[in-house]
Amino acid sequence: MPWEPPSEALAPVPGVAVGTACAGIKRRDRDDIALFCIEPGAETAAVFTRNAFCAAPVLVAREHLQLAQPRFLLVNAGNANAGTGAGGTAAARASCEAVAALGGCPPQAVLPFSTGVIGVPLPVDRIRGALPEALAAAHPEGWSRAARAIMTTDTRPKSCCRRIRVGDQDITVTGIAKGAGMIRPDMATMLAFVATDARLRGTALVRCLGDVVEESFNRITVDGDTSTNDACVLVATGRTGPPISEPSGPGFEALREAVREVCQSLAQAIVRDGEGATKFITVEVSGGRDREECLAVAYAIAHSPLVKTAFFASDANWGRILAAVGRAGIQGLDINRVRIHLGGVCIVDGGGRAPGYTEAAGAEVMAAPEIAVTVDLGRGAARERVWTCDFSYDYVRINAEYRT
Amino acid sequence: MPWEPPSEALAPVPGVAVGTACAGIKRRDRDDIALFCIEPGAETAAVFTRNAFCAAPVLVAREHLQLAQPRFLLVNAGNANAGTGAGGTAAARASCEAVAALGGCPPQAVLPFSTGVIGVPLPVDRIRGALPEALAAAHPEGWSRAARAIMTTDTRPKSCCRRIRVGDQDITVTGIAKGAGMIRPDMATMLAFVATDARLRGTALVRCLGDVVEESFNRITVDGDTSTNDACVLVATGRTGPPISEPSGPGFEALREAVREVCQSLAQAIVRDGEGATKFITVEVSGGRDREECLAVAYAIAHSPLVKTAFFASDANWGRILAAVGRAGIQGLDINRVRIHLGGVCIVDGGGRAPGYTEAAGAEVMAAPEIAVTVDLGRGAARERVWTCDFSYDYVRINAEYRT
Repeated sequence: MPWEPPSEALAPVPGVAVGTACAGIKRRDRDDIALFCIEPGAETAAVFTRNAFCAAPVLVAREHLQLAQPRFLLVNAGNANAGTGAGGTAAARASCEAVAALGGCPPQAVLPFSTGVIGVPLPVDRIRGALPEALAAAHPEGWSRAARAIMTTDTRPKSCCRRIRVGDQDITVTGIAKGAGMIRPDMATMLAFVATDARLRGTALVRCLGDVVEESFNRITVDGDTSTNDACVLVATGRTGPPISEPSGPGFEALREAVREVCQSLAQAIVRDGEGATKFITVEVSGGRDREECLAVAYAIAHSPLVKTAFFASDANWGRILAAVGRAGIQGLDINRVRIHLGGVCIVDGGGRAPGYTEAAGAEVMAAPEIAVTVDLGRGAARERVWTCDFSYDYVRINAEYRT
Repeated sequence: MPWEPPSEALAPVPGVAVGTACAGIKRRDRDDIALFCIEPGAETAAVFTRNAFCAAPVLVAREHLQLAQPRFLLVNAGNANAGTGAGGTAAARASCEAVAALGGCPPQAVLPFSTGVIGVPLPVDRIRGALPEALAAAHPEGWSRAARAIMTTDTRPKSCCRRIRVGDQDITVTGIAKGAGMIRPDMATMLAFVATDARLRGTALVRCLGDVVEESFNRITVDGDTSTNDACVLVATGRTGPPISEPSGPGFEALREAVREVCQSLAQAIVRDGEGATKFITVEVSGGRDREECLAVAYAIAHSPLVKTAFFASDANWGRILAAVGRAGIQGLDINRVRIHLGGVCIVDGGGRAPGYTEAAGAEVMAAPEIAVTVDLGRGAARERVWTCDFSYDYVRINAEYRT
C-alpha cells in the first residue's frame, strides 16, 4: 500500500547484539536466521500464542523461560516448526543446544522462534551450520538486518525505536517485528523482539509487556487467523537508569509509554503490510458497557469479508458495516442509539442512514489510504480500538500461491 | 462451480399459487417481485435473522405473524429495505396494505420479505404498480419463476421438491431459496419459502421448521456475515393427509424428514452458488464434548480465509486447518488426540502430520470439486456438520463491484 516505513535509524540497545546468516531454509539468496545475544544480568519477559496447536519452538521457549534468564534468542524464517509433533520439539531443542555449545551457556538460556510454512520438518543441520556465521556477525547495530532476516510474506521490514529520558539518563527502546498473514494475535503477534537498556525488573517487566501487548499486537487483525507461532519478547538489559521493579515505581509510566509506542508502531506496520492490503483501517468502538462488547463489535467489522472488500473497492457501502455491528451478538442493543462515522462523516444514526449523509461525502472518505470507522453503541463508557486492512485480489493470490 | 442444479420438476402444492412480475426495483429486464397466495385454512411458521439491525420487512413480518395467519407472502429482490429507519418500516407496511387491498384481506395477513442492497429507500410505488400483474399471474405452477424472481447475486435459481406417502395419501413438500453472499444464517437463511399440503398444525408445524432449519440453513456459511434480512417460511395448507398436530404424532417424523431434505438441498445449493465459489466443502467435527465445541471448530475452519484460499488453490495446506482447529478456543484440548482427515486421507494425527501422509494423496483429494474435512476431537460423543465453499478472486470481484 502507498505508505513508506519511517527511515529513522534504529538505535542500538546497550547489552544486546544481533547477528544474521543464511541457513538456506526455504531460499538461499537471503539471510533467514537471526541470533540475539543478550549480556548476563538482563531480564526477559515473553508472551506467546494461545493457539492449542502451538508450534514446537513456542513449547520449548515457554519451558526455557521458566528455567533461566535468556542469553540468546534464535529466530528462523521459512519454516514454522508447527504441526511437526515430537520430532519438531526435538528439532527445537537441538537448535538451542547448538547455540548453547557455541555461546557457552546452558541450552535453557536459549529461546527458539520459528516462522514460515506449517508442517514441514525443521532442517536443524542447516541452522546448525549457519550459527557460527550469525554469532560472528553479532553486533549492536544488527537490528535492521535482523528485521529483514525474519520476514516471510512481509514485503517490508518492520522496526521502531524510541529514546526517553528517565531521571538524568537517556534510555533506548528498540524493536523489530514480522507478520503479514495469519494475523489475529491472541496474547502476542507473529514475532516481535523489543529490547531496552532500562533497569526494568521482575513484576514491572512482566506488567509492562502485558499492558503494552494488550494495546498493540492484541488489537490488530489481517484475516482473523491466530497463528501457531505468535511470540513477543521484551528484553531489559538493565545497563542504564534507576531500577524499576514495581509497576507503581518512578519511571515505570514513562518507560511503558515508550514501549507502547514502539509496539503500536510495529503492530500497525504489520497491518499496513497485511497480505494484499491497500488500505489501513482504524476501527474504534465507544459507548459500550464493557471492553468485551466493544471488541466484539470492532472485530465483527474488522473480520467481515464484505466490509473488507468494500474498503478495497473504496465503496462507502455502509450497510455492510451496519450489518456487521448488528451481528456482533450484543444483547439488548438499541439500534436507535447506535451512531457510526466514516472518518468525520456520520453514516448511521437513528437505526438507518444518517440524515444529511450523501454518497459523495462517504466516497471522499473511502478514497483515502487511511480510514477510520467509529461506532458509538450509546450504552456505556467503554472504548476499544483495533487496526486492520482491506481484502483484495492480492490476498487471494498470495495465499493461493503460498506453497507453490 | 461445476455443478448443475437438479432439473426435477417442482410439484405444485395444493392450496398455494405463486405469481411474479417486474417492478423495476434495480433492473427492468427481469421479474423482481414474487407473490405467494395461500388459501384460507393454511398455517404458517417462520424464523428470522438474529441480526440486531434486522430489516424493516423482518420487523413487520414478525409482527404480522403474531396477529393473523398469512394469506400472502410478498417478496422483492434488488432492495433489502434494511438500515432504512422509520421510513423503511412505513414502506414495508405500505406494501402489505397494497397487497391486502387487491387480495381482500387485512394487511396483517400479508408478510413482506426483501433482499438486495442495504440502506436504499424501498420504491413502494413501483412495487404497488406491479402487484396486479403478479396477482393475475399467480398459479400453482409458478414456483420456478418465483425462484428466479427472488435472485440477487445468485447465479442459479434454487429449488427442491419431495413427495412422500403418509397413510394412504401422497404429500408434497416444495421449496425455493435465494442467497449467495452475506451468508452465515442464524435462525434462518437469506430467504427460503417452503410449502406442503400436509395438515401440519400448531406446535408440530413450529417444531418441524425449528428442527429442520437447525440442520440445514443454520449449518452453512459463505463469508460469516449474517444478513439483516434472513427469513425461512414453512406453509402447510392442510389439504391432504391426516392432521399432524403434535411432534410425537403419526406422520410427523416422515414429514419432517421430507422437509429436512428439501431444506438441506436448498441450503447446500446456496453454498454451491456462494459468491465466487469453485468448491463445495463439508466440514464434519466429531468427538466433541458438546454441540457448541463441535460448531466452534467447524466454523473456525469454515470461516478461515487461509483455509478457504487454500481450497481455491487446490492446495493441501493442512497446516492451516490444524491452525484453525487450534484457535477455536476449545478449553483443555489435547492435540495429541485430534485426528483430521481430508476426504479419506488422514492428514493430522498425534499432534502433527499423520504418519504415512503424502502430498500426492492430499493433492488428489483437493483436486475434486467436492471435499470433506473431518475432525475428530477425541474427547466426547457430540458431532456437527457445516457446509461452506472456497474463497476466490471472484468473491473479491463480486463484492468490490457490487454497487457499481
